[in-house]
Amino acid sequence: MQLKNGAEYMESLRRLHPRIYYKGEPVSDVTRHPATAPHVRAAAMTYALAAKPQYRDLATAVSHLTGRTISRFTHVHQSIEDLIKKIKLLRVLGRKTGTCFQRCVGFDGINAVYSVAYEVDQAHGTDYLERFKQWLIAIQDENKMVVGAMTDSKGDRAKGPAQQADPDQYVRVVQRRPDGVVIRGAKLHMTGAVNSHEVLVMPTTALDESAGDYAIVCAVPIDAPGITLIFGRQAGDDRRDQLERIDVGKPRFGAVGGEAVIAFEDVFVPNERIFLNGETAFTGSLVYRFAAHHRANYGACKTGLMDVLTGAVTYLAQIQGTAKGSHVRDKVTEMIHLSETLYSSSIACSAEGAPTPSGAYLVDTMLANVCKQNVTRFHFEVARLAVDIAGGFIATLPSEYDLESEAVGHIVEKYFSGVSGIPVRERIKIGRLIEAMTGGTAMVESMHGAGSPQAQRIMIFREGRLAEKVKLAKALAGIPQRRQGKQKSD
Amino acid sequence: MQLKNGAEYMESLRRLHPRIYYKGEPVSDVTRHPATAPHVRAAAMTYALAAKPQYRDLATAVSHLTGRTISRFTHVHQSIEDLIKKIKLLRVLGRKTGTCFQRCVGFDGINAVYSVAYEVDQAHGTDYLERFKQWLIAIQDENKMVVGAMTDSKGDRAKGPAQQADPDQYVRVVQRRPDGVVIRGAKLHMTGAVNSHEVLVMPTTALDESAGDYAIVCAVPIDAPGITLIFGRQAGDDRRDQLERIDVGKPRFGAVGGEAVIAFEDVFVPNERIFLNGETAFTGSLVYRFAAHHRANYGACKTGLMDVLTGAVTYLAQIQGTAKGSHVRDKVTEMIHLSETLYSSSIACSAEGAPTPSGAYLVDTMLANVCKQNVTRFHFEVARLAVDIAGGFIATLPSEYDLESEAVGHIVEKYFSGVSGIPVRERIKIGRLIEAMTGGTAMVESMHGAGSPQAQRIMIFREGRLAEKVKLAKALAGIPQRRQGKQKSD
Amino acid sequence: MQLKNGAEYMESLRRLHPRIYYKGEPVSDVTRHPATAPHVRAAAMTYALAAKPQYRDLATAVSHLTGRTISRFTHVHQSIEDLIKKIKLLRVLGRKTGTCFQRCVGFDGINAVYSVAYEVDQAHGTDYLERFKQWLIAIQDENKMVVGAMTDSKGDRAKGPAQQADPDQYVRVVQRRPDGVVIRGAKLHMTGAVNSHEVLVMPTTALDESAGDYAIVCAVPIDAPGITLIFGRQAGDDRRDQLERIDVGKPRFGAVGGEAVIAFEDVFVPNERIFLNGETAFTGSLVYRFAAHHRANYGACKTGLMDVLTGAVTYLAQIQGTAKGSHVRDKVTEMIHLSETLYSSSIACSAEGAPTPSGAYLVDTMLANVCKQNVTRFHFEVARLAVDIAGGFIATLPSEYDLESEAVGHIVEKYFSGVSGIPVRERIKIGRLIEAMTGGTAMVESMHGAGSPQAQRIMIFREGRLAEKVKLAKALAGIPQRRQGKQKSD
Amino acid sequence: MQLKNGAEYMESLRRLHPRIYYKGEPVSDVTRHPATAPHVRAAAMTYALAAKPQYRDLATAVSHLTGRTISRFTHVHQSIEDLIKKIKLLRVLGRKTGTCFQRCVGFDGINAVYSVAYEVDQAHGTDYLERFKQWLIAIQDENKMVVGAMTDSKGDRAKGPAQQADPDQYVRVVQRRPDGVVIRGAKLHMTGAVNSHEVLVMPTTALDESAGDYAIVCAVPIDAPGITLIFGRQAGDDRRDQLERIDVGKPRFGAVGGEAVIAFEDVFVPNERIFLNGETAFTGSLVYRFAAHHRANYGACKTGLMDVLTGAVTYLAQIQGTAKGSHVRDKVTEMIHLSETLYSSSIACSAEGAPTPSGAYLVDTMLANVCKQNVTRFHFEVARLAVDIAGGFIATLPSEYDLESEAVGHIVEKYFSGVSGIPVRERIKIGRLIEAMTGGTAMVESMHGAGSPQAQRIMIFREGRLAEKVKLAKALAGIPQRRQGKQKSD
Repeated sequence: MQLKNGAEYMESLRRLHPRIYYKGEPVSDVTRHPATAPHVRAAAMTYALAAKPQYRDLATAVSHLTGRTISRFTHVHQSIEDLIKKIKLLRVLGRKTGTCFQRCVGFDGINAVYSVAYEVDQAHGTDYLERFKQWLIAIQDENKMVVGAMTDSKGDRAKGPAQQADPDQYVRVVQRRPDGVVIRGAKLHMTGAVNSHEVLVMPTTALDESAGDYAIVCAVPIDAPGITLIFGRQAGDDRRDQLERIDVGKPRFGAVGGEAVIAFEDVFVPNERIFLNGETAFTGSLVYRFAAHHRANYGACKTGLMDVLTGAVTYLAQIQGTAKGSHVRDKVTEMIHLSETLYSSSIACSAEGAPTPSGAYLVDTMLANVCKQNVTRFHFEVARLAVDIAGGFIATLPSEYDLESEAVGHIVEKYFSGVSGIPVRERIKIGRLIEAMTGGTAMVESMHGAGSPQAQRIMIFREGRLAEKVKLAKALAGIPQRRQGKQKSD
Repeated sequence: MQLKNGAEYMESLRRLHPRIYYKGEPVSDVTRHPATAPHVRAAAMTYALAAKPQYRDLATAVSHLTGRTISRFTHVHQSIEDLIKKIKLLRVLGRKTGTCFQRCVGFDGINAVYSVAYEVDQAHGTDYLERFKQWLIAIQDENKMVVGAMTDSKGDRAKGPAQQADPDQYVRVVQRRPDGVVIRGAKLHMTGAVNSHEVLVMPTTALDESAGDYAIVCAVPIDAPGITLIFGRQAGDDRRDQLERIDVGKPRFGAVGGEAVIAFEDVFVPNERIFLNGETAFTGSLVYRFAAHHRANYGACKTGLMDVLTGAVTYLAQIQGTAKGSHVRDKVTEMIHLSETLYSSSIACSAEGAPTPSGAYLVDTMLANVCKQNVTRFHFEVARLAVDIAGGFIATLPSEYDLESEAVGHIVEKYFSGVSGIPVRERIKIGRLIEAMTGGTAMVESMHGAGSPQAQRIMIFREGRLAEKVKLAKALAGIPQRRQGKQKSD
Repeated sequence: MQLKNGAEYMESLRRLHPRIYYKGEPVSDVTRHPATAPHVRAAAMTYALAAKPQYRDLATAVSHLTGRTISRFTHVHQSIEDLIKKIKLLRVLGRKTGTCFQRCVGFDGINAVYSVAYEVDQAHGTDYLERFKQWLIAIQDENKMVVGAMTDSKGDRAKGPAQQADPDQYVRVVQRRPDGVVIRGAKLHMTGAVNSHEVLVMPTTALDESAGDYAIVCAVPIDAPGITLIFGRQAGDDRRDQLERIDVGKPRFGAVGGEAVIAFEDVFVPNERIFLNGETAFTGSLVYRFAAHHRANYGACKTGLMDVLTGAVTYLAQIQGTAKGSHVRDKVTEMIHLSETLYSSSIACSAEGAPTPSGAYLVDTMLANVCKQNVTRFHFEVARLAVDIAGGFIATLPSEYDLESEAVGHIVEKYFSGVSGIPVRERIKIGRLIEAMTGGTAMVESMHGAGSPQAQRIMIFREGRLAEKVKLAKALAGIPQRRQGKQKSD
Repeated sequence: MQLKNGAEYMESLRRLHPRIYYKGEPVSDVTRHPATAPHVRAAAMTYALAAKPQYRDLATAVSHLTGRTISRFTHVHQSIEDLIKKIKLLRVLGRKTGTCFQRCVGFDGINAVYSVAYEVDQAHGTDYLERFKQWLIAIQDENKMVVGAMTDSKGDRAKGPAQQADPDQYVRVVQRRPDGVVIRGAKLHMTGAVNSHEVLVMPTTALDESAGDYAIVCAVPIDAPGITLIFGRQAGDDRRDQLERIDVGKPRFGAVGGEAVIAFEDVFVPNERIFLNGETAFTGSLVYRFAAHHRANYGACKTGLMDVLTGAVTYLAQIQGTAKGSHVRDKVTEMIHLSETLYSSSIACSAEGAPTPSGAYLVDTMLANVCKQNVTRFHFEVARLAVDIAGGFIATLPSEYDLESEAVGHIVEKYFSGVSGIPVRERIKIGRLIEAMTGGTAMVESMHGAGSPQAQRIMIFREGRLAEKVKLAKALAGIPQRRQGKQKSD
């Protein structure tokens, strides 16, 4: 691993020159810009953990390609143990950053592309896997951060890629050259994009034969010519931009992952960086495997966040004098219960994982979908409970400027106290932490990250093996099994 | 009504000189300061409606004290019809402002103090009601805005007012003079305080005899000497402070009510403005009636907000091409269902209202508590559904500065489009509206405004008439009713 | 009112001779047969209350047709007050019987047919309302019980009445004669049918012109030639059939309403008893008004049942020694909260009721649908909470035969005791009451009675005024309102 | 394994002579009595599976004591793989029986006693484990069914064992003899008791030193002198007693496990069958480990039942013509989602299992508690959804006697049809299956089996590691960690 810790990671970012905009202005150094630095620090934690002995087993792995020790975030899962270690690593990172640390999308993209490239090669005699391995070995050896770029802008959602008024609403090949292709389009909501080294482009949906130009998987350096990134706006980002220390809630880290638009305005990709090109029949598998891996993660990282939130309200209740209330304990119990329910599915879909033909392990897809579906409910409920326990002051608290003010600082100090002897500032800080972790952007991410709820429901229904369950019911009810032909789910 | 419309209201505010701070700086004109102006505009809508023929019946009433037409927000309810008209008025205002319009707290305070003052006078031979009527007539005639000030800072929640290390954690009389009293303490989360004319101070909890100095009800002009207001911070206020036009979501109105700390640093109150002074036995009734009226309102104004949110996601779904999806329709149905369930309780507790001994009508307290309890659940669920339908872009959207930027504006324009022919700006605006209405502060207000959930549960249990229900069950089970003495709820 | 009390009602039933089957055998006297008698007693309570001074105001009304005092269950609502009194009456009856008392279906049928007949007459110059009034005056004067018969057998639910393989799956006219019509088909789930005097037949769905033979509204005596009733099976009916006294839970009343199939095997109906005949355009209104009235009721009668259940678990907790547990209190609080939330909608849809052109009052249809929708959720949750508080013994308790047994009675007596001094039999009886009120049939009724959940959701969506809400949202987001043509709900 | 299949198991039961009562009468042969035979058949399935090649790997294990192949239900878990195979076995059995197959309680008792006996021996120099192994080897070799007997009758729940008015409300030693002890008391809700060979008695709660006589763990043959069993009553048992074939829903199996009171009226237990005797300090661990194992199971067996229910409503929707409705698909999706969420926790708590000092593996206790807690919610919700999809006819359907009746059978045949060509009887049977699986007793079992919900909540709170989480929150909020002494969970 060339990049051995957070500092080296940051240094490496400074050597890149991506074209990034935020609030209408260019961002020249993501490691220092107040809007992006908190997210860089969160990603840096993935590098930092690998350097700490107590986390080394979780945070690193041995490459099956090279035998060298690599960051787990660049590893292709070789066993159930790998899948479970990943889950535990993500929970630790969620606990340490209280936010998204962004490396999963690339990680999951790597795993999805690896297994699918193998299958395409088997079917078509292509050499995608070999190309991919070469690229991946470099990523592993240099310990680069990769943003997995899947979600297209989509335009009119009632229409497919090839039916859009503007054909660029899904990333596509606009020119084919002997040495590569030129792509155009945009990927939205790209977590960690501005502080990644590479983009791994993948289609966002299963495609049919008519949409061959949209069936493109490839890798592009983040600062390739033609790429522009626009860093999105988040709840509370203005406070960060002002370099506030208390009201941001989490002084070192962002509210959530830090998303960007990645616009590809005619970007050239050489052949050796192309891992799928027109084989539409495999896009469904690719999307589905990526989604499954990614959905599996949410019960781990978000549980880490909920651990933080549970600790925050517990501490706040202690210093406000409400911790012994039976209803407070019951709500804290519920927060833990929901968190651990989510975690269960992440562990379970890993424990039930299985190898794909390539040897790369895939999680149990049903349980991974179930996991993410619950995140879209339980994280909201956990946040609601946290707000309930915290009390109304997190919505009406004067700013840190008032706290520091000569004119009114004494009023804030006096009237936002809690249990005698606890510094007022602690109550305010913990209140701001809860505000940051339960507000808008953070919650939206739990809803739509790794796919919107309906996407999971479609998969849950499809994988529900209803014909088999109909048989069970008929057997118990004493009904003959004769009409197999009709036992479809519909 | 001296103040006949929004403009006159704003003008009247400019004539006052309250001491207000926000972000460490004094605010000299609340009607123009970017942080407070949106809230002033929302309150102004309560004045504006009274001037419009189609809302006149809801927005005004005939004073039972003077026979003159007054703003309903200064009226003492004289009938069930009054209670129901109030509910309908609040829903209209919620729909027109999409936020808190702040006049309910004073309105409910007036109604609670009126009925309790009558009963104190009956019991103690005092003349509180007469004093109160004189004050109220002036409020009605001038159509002043009153902030009902109840919630104390509370310090250590495990201790009562008189047990605090700092005795000022609940507002109290620190000096008694022949011509009045001097009060000290602070009221927190005071909705509409910075743009009110008067403060109506009330105790925050039922007090026992040992806490006589805390049993004080009185009215104080907002700019009385010794009063300092600190305007609290909200999610998204920085965008308003920057005078952004799109990213604020609701360009004209605030995210929620605009709360302030009201610090009373030894404020003198003359006798004629004192409406309760030491009669601790009546504080329970006062708090409870205020709470009941206030809780009743939440099923009306919040339903108005949910109407807006329902409209917003419906429109967004239309212009994104998702409106025909069965799961989208089902989620919209659920949003309506939950909204109307809330509204039911507001209507029902009004329809089941009854006169107090003073003649002022009180809502059914059980149903009012039920109403607010559901707000603490359903508004969150409605927001969650809105976020689900809206899609992830509301959390990752580039800023309006990017949209306007020469460098990257074309990318935002191109890739945030939806259904062909709809201006991209409309999609962005409606997305920002949803972001503003589902984010942090707005939701916290629904949780804790009018009392935290546990406050309602305590009342619901107490008013549950369990002994009566035990009798019903025993009758049906064929168990004799003999042991009346033991049929307590515990 | 010819039938002045429960005894007279029962006597009147003995004078009828309907053809009834239960468990394959004919039932000759429904007032004495163990399967039907509990249901007859529940219906008799509607007669008994009218005779008691304290309930007279709720249980009776003054006929707008005759000026005579009649049972409210035969009344056409003339005011909001009527609608609200009905709701209160139903809750009382739910509390006194702990079950369905069956008269609502006829009551709601009367109200729906009355207002629609007026409108048909206006449109077509028919005299349906006059015929109906004549029939209704007799019902009122004699205080007869009417079963409103709407739900058809429906066959293949994917097809309409006229598309069925068997055209009789919806009740239809099979022969038209000068003096009347002959009808065939069956109405299912007919609550109270076996102990009604009359059947009021109505179509079950909005019909189009092709289905004219299905557009028939008429009244038929319960013992008319060609009618056969088959009394359905319920959870726990075997215990009643064995005349058990403890294990039935509610010794005097049934688990739920007592439903029957009413088969019409070519039943003749004379013209004066026909109130709609082929006017398909009005079937939608008829079904919808009936449904709205009926759905409004569920928040009243079921709340009465939940009151009983709340009392039952409270008492059980007291005698088991668990009543002081904070989690028990919290669950009881939740039971009350959910009950009163339901009740809110029943009150609210009545308070917001309005006159139809006929003068008959109709509830607010949105709020009535909301009401029933919540019943399909909250009654289940209330039952779940009751089961939680009650403890596992309600599922494993030995029978009353064991309790009475010489061999093992002492074991049951010893080991099912609770708090010292409470007769074991009381704990068992209350346990059996809870078992009866939370088990299968009772819950299914709350799900599907007055229409299955999806039926309400369709109406809630339709009545959601989405175009209006879209306007609100656009106004607040600063979007021009120009494209009215596209602001449809889809 | 002496008992190699279901037939041999049944034969072995006929050789025993336990004293059993049901409905006041003795039961001489549990394998043939209509009330008990369905439960015997469900337990027999655990024997039958071991004989089938495709289930052999799940249904058997290799004894770590003897190296011989044994039924997994008599095995002491030696690995995570063992824990996971158990989960998979239970789901298969739930799917094949649609009910409780009863062998888990003994299985879990064996595992709990084994690991605790080791620790008691280590602490006290006793030889409990050796005694237990001898007993267990016999159980394994003969493949006996053991009922784990934990739940005492408890009397007044506000008091502990030693504080009861009647000291026998918890099973206790009433006489100590050189060769053993005499015990008295009763165990309630004993699943599978009447068709077990042995009873494994365990205390029901953590005991303190004053309660030494209650700290008794021992094994007793089911037909030991002094033991009386009273078989409890279930919803629908009368239909089974009448040997009905359709209306029972599941003709071959019971609604739920078949519970009995086991009364110990001074039963002698020889020393070699005593595995704990007075060492109160270990009772907490014993109860907790038993509970953890048992709670882990519920996400497996109940998921099996929900699979059946999901299949049943799917089939019913198909033959009623509703399967293509989007709301039906969505509800089926939700049923699957909830089922798999439960299953996740069973898998996860197994995958996260760990060895106890004895070498026996224990599940992750937090996740096991979470699992059961969700069963108390989700099984109810799944049942509610099933009832929703099924339609109201499952509550009003005429009996099978009517179906067979010459008089009215044709009416049932005609009017309970669905999609053309499907035998009516199939629709009725599947309806009855749903009725049986969603009714009273079955649901109560999911609530209280393996401990009532509050029992899980207490453990979830205790194991929530709140101090650790407070540290995380403080770190992120920038609060120093100094006050370790106060970071308690309360």
